[in-house]
Amino acid sequence: MSKKVVVIGGVAGGASTAARVRRLDEKAEIIMLEKGPHVSFSNCSLPFHLSGIVENSEKLLMMDPVQFKKKYNIDARVFQEVTHIDKVNKKVTIHNHATGETSDESYDVLVLSPGAKPIVPALPGIDATHVFTVRNVVDIERLQQYVSQDTIENIAVIGGGFIGVEVAENLRLANKNVALIEFAPQVMAPFDDDMVQIIHKEMLDKGIDLRVGDGLASIEDKTVTLQSGKQVKADAVVLAIGVRPDTTLAEDAGLDIGETGAIVVDGNYVTSDPSIYAVGDAIEVFHQILHKKTRLALAGPAQKQARAAADHMYGITNRHRGVIGSSSIQIFDYACATTGINERTAREAGMTVDSVYVISPDKVGLMPNSNPLHFKLIFEVPTGKIVGAQAIGKGNADKRIDVIATLISFGGTVDDLKDLELSYSPMYGTAKDVVNMAALVADNLLAGRFKQVHVSQTRELVESGAYIVDVREEAELKNGMLKGAYNIPLSQLRERMDEIPRDIPVYIHCRSAQRSYNATVALQGAGFTNVKNMAGSFLGTCLYEYFRDTTEGREPIVTNYNFK
Amino acid sequence: MSKKVVVIGGVAGGASTAARVRRLDEKAEIIMLEKGPHVSFSNCSLPFHLSGIVENSEKLLMMDPVQFKKKYNIDARVFQEVTHIDKVNKKVTIHNHATGETSDESYDVLVLSPGAKPIVPALPGIDATHVFTVRNVVDIERLQQYVSQDTIENIAVIGGGFIGVEVAENLRLANKNVALIEFAPQVMAPFDDDMVQIIHKEMLDKGIDLRVGDGLASIEDKTVTLQSGKQVKADAVVLAIGVRPDTTLAEDAGLDIGETGAIVVDGNYVTSDPSIYAVGDAIEVFHQILHKKTRLALAGPAQKQARAAADHMYGITNRHRGVIGSSSIQIFDYACATTGINERTAREAGMTVDSVYVISPDKVGLMPNSNPLHFKLIFEVPTGKIVGAQAIGKGNADKRIDVIATLISFGGTVDDLKDLELSYSPMYGTAKDVVNMAALVADNLLAGRFKQVHVSQTRELVESGAYIVDVREEAELKNGMLKGAYNIPLSQLRERMDEIPRDIPVYIHCRSAQRSYNATVALQGAGFTNVKNMAGSFLGTCLYEYFRDTTEGREPIVTNYNFK
Repeated sequence: MSKKVVVIGGVAGGASTAARVRRLDEKAEIIMLEKGPHVSFSNCSLPFHLSGIVENSEKLLMMDPVQFKKKYNIDARVFQEVTHIDKVNKKVTIHNHATGETSDESYDVLVLSPGAKPIVPALPGIDATHVFTVRNVVDIERLQQYVSQDTIENIAVIGGGFIGVEVAENLRLANKNVALIEFAPQVMAPFDDDMVQIIHKEMLDKGIDLRVGDGLASIEDKTVTLQSGKQVKADAVVLAIGVRPDTTLAEDAGLDIGETGAIVVDGNYVTSDPSIYAVGDAIEVFHQILHKKTRLALAGPAQKQARAAADHMYGITNRHRGVIGSSSIQIFDYACATTGINERTAREAGMTVDSVYVISPDKVGLMPNSNPLHFKLIFEVPTGKIVGAQAIGKGNADKRIDVIATLISFGGTVDDLKDLELSYSPMYGTAKDVVNMAALVADNLLAGRFKQVHVSQTRELVESGAYIVDVREEAELKNGMLKGAYNIPLSQLRERMDEIPRDIPVYIHCRSAQRSYNATVALQGAGFTNVKNMAGSFLGTCLYEYFRDTTEGREPIVTNYNFK
Repeated sequence: MSKKVVVIGGVAGGASTAARVRRLDEKAEIIMLEKGPHVSFSNCSLPFHLSGIVENSEKLLMMDPVQFKKKYNIDARVFQEVTHIDKVNKKVTIHNHATGETSDESYDVLVLSPGAKPIVPALPGIDATHVFTVRNVVDIERLQQYVSQDTIENIAVIGGGFIGVEVAENLRLANKNVALIEFAPQVMAPFDDDMVQIIHKEMLDKGIDLRVGDGLASIEDKTVTLQSGKQVKADAVVLAIGVRPDTTLAEDAGLDIGETGAIVVDGNYVTSDPSIYAVGDAIEVFHQILHKKTRLALAGPAQKQARAAADHMYGITNRHRGVIGSSSIQIFDYACATTGINERTAREAGMTVDSVYVISPDKVGLMPNSNPLHFKLIFEVPTGKIVGAQAIGKGNADKRIDVIATLISFGGTVDDLKDLELSYSPMYGTAKDVVNMAALVADNLLAGRFKQVHVSQTRELVESGAYIVDVREEAELKNGMLKGAYNIPLSQLRERMDEIPRDIPVYIHCRSAQRSYNATVALQGAGFTNVKNMAGSFLGTCLYEYFRDTTEGREPIVTNYNFK
């Protein structure tokens, strides 16, 4: 007897599970139940409809029920909401939103792929008709139609995660006045405070009215009011505060729900009922680095879960590795990518970590469109085991992060990374790629060959009058200096060492911390015992300080910002 | 007493070794001897001067002796050729080409970084003034000045390796008529025959007169004559046949030279004399996958060798991992990258391997500039251990190869690759990246879930009248079909299976082999026992056949080529 597989949810995880079951078993009966009007659409591409990058919203739909039937012999049914799971008798109750009818469907195996739903806080005005969420094609069509009215000029996006940032960007590209409101002190939580300031600056530069550290309090007719009392004009409001696993049905069926609030599954994506699998944004996953259950609403892992679940139904084993959480996003001119955990999360988890921040050309400087790549590497001390990385730049940040993601999957260390033999052409990188560079810096740090301070410490050093040596050449100074820094160009350092005090801490910077590293070790070699290299140096400091100086009216610690 | 380190060769490996020695030892005396006029130039960027991408050749020079002295306290001397090494008394004899004088310099440690020199075959006309090689800034300036004369219209480039291809491309971008002559049946030896045809087509499309399988016989005034007797117009000739390790000095000093013709070093880059190190293109390296000594003239490994050699002088251990040979090159609109070994090399080495060829979008199809990425994965059978990969596409091929390079470094398998959690944004990839896809196909293959034929087998199948089913939808057929193929769209397959014979082998294709894989397993599930998926399918076949059909006047096996 062949299996009857019923899949609840016809997007991403659900559709992928169904397709893999078909490939493994031509004779299986496969029914896919979707409560909305569409199956198999491109979730991650939704925001791009707002700018017209995806002009025709129908293109967001990858397959329709007719194609599922013809090409895969999968019975995909839309407007069919499962309202109850009868685990004992192995059947589901379906409410047909098109006809209003209710019916039952039996199953041998049930797959839950209900996804996650947008969090909508109970705030005044939240139910107004100009308030939107973005979960599916219908949502994005509604929003797009609303904001494309000429009268809609000002839009407030609430929440600076992936969806909020992408919605804000695409609305801005459509020439709207966009305010992005984020309760946390920063957008894009996967990035650390130091790296995210580059993103903050880019959003500011591109005309987004970015408000961090302030939450939504209420929504009025043409404004939103923030928790600070400030008001922001808003003819439309998009809620992108976050998502919550859609566990209604699973809870109703008495399936185990974990501490994270998501459905509990074992290593094969089997729930607490052996005939029911669950995949996608509604489940708990095991984090490979944090060694604990977590939630991760990303498309890549959902695809892998779908395949593994289908495989398990047919006795095919999959090694369960846990997740590491890689992601990337384009934010205007910048590619931004992360993998593993950030430094903040590592410290919160009680791990002993350190980090390096390297600014290196994304390709040989002579080549067209060579730009600085900002790269942060987080590693365990003293093992050197790499636990995360973040990359931001106009060039190929995602490439560097994918390399680190691969390395993390194998438990790789700083030592492994420094030796990594990557492909090189002047058009695509440098002979020592930025990821190798970061590992070399980390290696020198772990070996105790030098000490460093981070860009987040620069303000305090400047304000406290620390002894800072700027080793850039004189011609570079005209575009800006750290206030109070003392210039001794690297080319004059050896003859002017006597000018530097030996009895107090000395901090060294250049433009991007490479020459200052040379200066640091030269001074150490000459007997200086308390010298520290300033990671990120002048360029990193300018990027780190700019957004807050500008939006908070803070006194800059640089004479001029210089982002070159 | 601090060390006196003498470095022979002031480019790449030599300069990097000197710089690392300085960082490790502020007190070392470091002398760098370069026989040419320049130290520290960007070798890999030389060809780009021909097109004007690097307009000013002075920009190719990264550091001059004055900067070496001022910034690193390194005594870099140009026009100083070492003519003899006295190992016993630890001194070198230097001929100063500027002054004509000869002098001695003692050393505690000597570093050889002589590089490799272009192979110049003894052929008629080879010494003519319009014949050039490309090794350094002087060479490229000479060539550029010569070819920029209006009278120089036709240029023959001999040799289709990295330098030959880049020189040909950059001359073509400068609007020259360029013929590229390669003795082997293909350019770019790191690629297999199947993948390289895409490169051949691109060169043809961009107006390069590409001649493969034909060598240089003689050079005349305005022509070159090939071994076939064919003549090609050539107002200038660039020899880029290959390079040979420059071992003159090492041989003269009695240092061990290996079977590969390069200098023998141990794991720490120490030659057969314990006071002499050697790094860069002149040494033998150990191949991590082939488990034997080989030569590898690449900048990335040279940098790592330089650092490891300097470290060893100061007692810092480096784990010696061997090389894998990653490289990338831009060829007109295409990014082309490889890592590890190709299928040809693996088979020649007696390894049991198989390969998959996947054509997958480099980013979500809805996004701007989404293009097919052609990806080949080579793995050991039955272990699934990955030994190499090749990627070609208008998008980010180098990213995919760097991921595989990282994976190979850890001895990763198909199973590891299929689970790899890479960063995903619709702008940079797909939820299942092409590298994951390749692993899934390989996994299905290793598990015996289907069988395949390669694009290299398609011609024979077509010509022998094999039963080929084209499962593309009808609307796709107008742009071309495999001759004699039988169309049953995937959407009609299940109702029309009876039309397919059960007693003979059946080969299935679609556009890119994804739908045909679904058809293949569907047929198997319906009891067909001799069905094979055609890897590369129609698009791959068109790309594989086009260059040879066009240049050899061969009868096409497709009704029309279609590269969409």
